Amino acid sequence: MTGVPGAPPRARGHRPPAGDPVVDRALALLSAFDSNRPYLTLSELSRRTGIPASSALRLAGRLLEWGALERGADGRFSIGLRLWEVASLSPRSHGLRQVALPFMGDLEEVTRQHVLLAVREGEEAVMVERLSSHGAVPALYRAGGRLPLHSTGVGLVLLAFAEPGFQEEVLAQPLMHQPENVPVSPAALRRTLAEIRRDGLSTLRRAAPGPIVSVAAPVHDAQGTVVAALSVVVPAENAEPRLLGPAVRTAARGISRGLGAWRAPATP
Amino acid sequence: MTGVPGAPPRARGHRPPAGDPVVDRALALLSAFDSNRPYLTLSELSRRTGIPASSALRLAGRLLEWGALERGADGRFSIGLRLWEVASLSPRSHGLRQVALPFMGDLEEVTRQHVLLAVREGEEAVMVERLSSHGAVPALYRAGGRLPLHSTGVGLVLLAFAEPGFQEEVLAQPLMHQPENVPVSPAALRRTLAEIRRDGLSTLRRAAPGPIVSVAAPVHDAQGTVVAALSVVVPAENAEPRLLGPAVRTAARGISRGLGAWRAPATP
Repeated sequence: MTGVPGAPPRARGHRPPAGDPVVDRALALLSAFDSNRPYLTLSELSRRTGIPASSALRLAGRLLEWGALERGADGRFSIGLRLWEVASLSPRSHGLRQVALPFMGDLEEVTRQHVLLAVREGEEAVMVERLSSHGAVPALYRAGGRLPLHSTGVGLVLLAFAEPGFQEEVLAQPLMHQPENVPVSPAALRRTLAEIRRDGLSTLRRAAPGPIVSVAAPVHDAQGTVVAALSVVVPAENAEPRLLGPAVRTAARGISRGLGAWRAPATP
Repeated sequence: MTGVPGAPPRARGHRPPAGDPVVDRALALLSAFDSNRPYLTLSELSRRTGIPASSALRLAGRLLEWGALERGADGRFSIGLRLWEVASLSPRSHGLRQVALPFMGDLEEVTRQHVLLAVREGEEAVMVERLSSHGAVPALYRAGGRLPLHSTGVGLVLLAFAEPGFQEEVLAQPLMHQPENVPVSPAALRRTLAEIRRDGLSTLRRAAPGPIVSVAAPVHDAQGTVVAALSVVVPAENAEPRLLGPAVRTAARGISRGLGAWRAPATP
């Protein structure tokens, strides 16, 4: 649930801060936390950022005062609620979530499994929301976490509707299916992306951590641009992707409409 | 939905940055955004923070590069998705939400209105999640936003279970019911808090923006401390708080159990 086994360690938080201005150092402290390490001691912060402990303590003091960090009774630091408050104003997470949540709730009620919403951020997808029923199959990714574009349902949709130049860049790289770590055939991926564009739907089967099927559809904004992807993830056993497709597409259209897509031009 | 009418303007983002170190200035830029103004031009950023435009542009450049800010085609800045990714590691928002969401989904399915989850932050509550059905009554507060402790269901629960010293501080202040702007009687509030502690439940009726009833219950952590409050908000018409109470308390206990409350000591 906290990352892809075998994925390379994330670079952020580990770059040398030498010569970086003080703002970059403060941001490096924030980057030192990840889902495996939501609590860090001062010496861990210093080690993970390369910032000397005395400087780290002084900078952390400013971040604590503002509320970007919090410090527990045991002296360990964590990301502060105030930072989350401010960050919740991010249009690409909060604005989208507000529109999407009721539709995601409908889908979750019907499927009783996972419902995911993701946006593209560089060469990965970021999951901005996940609704999961009690007893849903084990999930590989968490809200706030990153997913590979080429081996997740939402990622494939985001890739299929990205600019052609960007798609070519991705296709030119050596890609491995995650988490199975099997090489991806660029020709097969190209065909898959074309099918997704034709059908407005992606159906992906994955063997690990358990056999699951992901059915994903694009979400459009008022300009018709694909800004997000919505999916349901259900156990492969008894899954009927042909029945799930219309449900996912309908919910994705509902979110798109909420974002202003397909609206008749306003007549003032 | 974006704030309390008549509430005093928020201080954050408006404090003079004179003499502040550079980190404080960078944080002031982030604080300049609020739910009414998720997009700001450079001159608005400069005006709202008191930071000269040239310095604001330089600092914003560092924040853009890291992803704490994003900039649209129209040149306006907004909070970046990367900041939200990091902020989602805040244990008091994300950790709690992960445990709470399935239980909140159950409650929403039963009530078909709003389900709220809030934590205390200083003298206010912060809503860490809200699930709202299609067609739910108009909501006054949003996820990521702040609520007054003394005039919301979740706020009253958080206040009732706060340290007595903190309660006395709050009771000593002149308080107004929001959004009606009616003075609160300290004696009546004291009685209400005692009842909430006795019943493990708060039932609050509010006239605006529409007549609603809020039924709220405490969420405990593994140490038995009240760390959050859960509520349903339904239209007053046809509301049956006596029937909603057990549902809200049951869901709140489920979340508490998920956080480790009432667990039998592990026998290794």
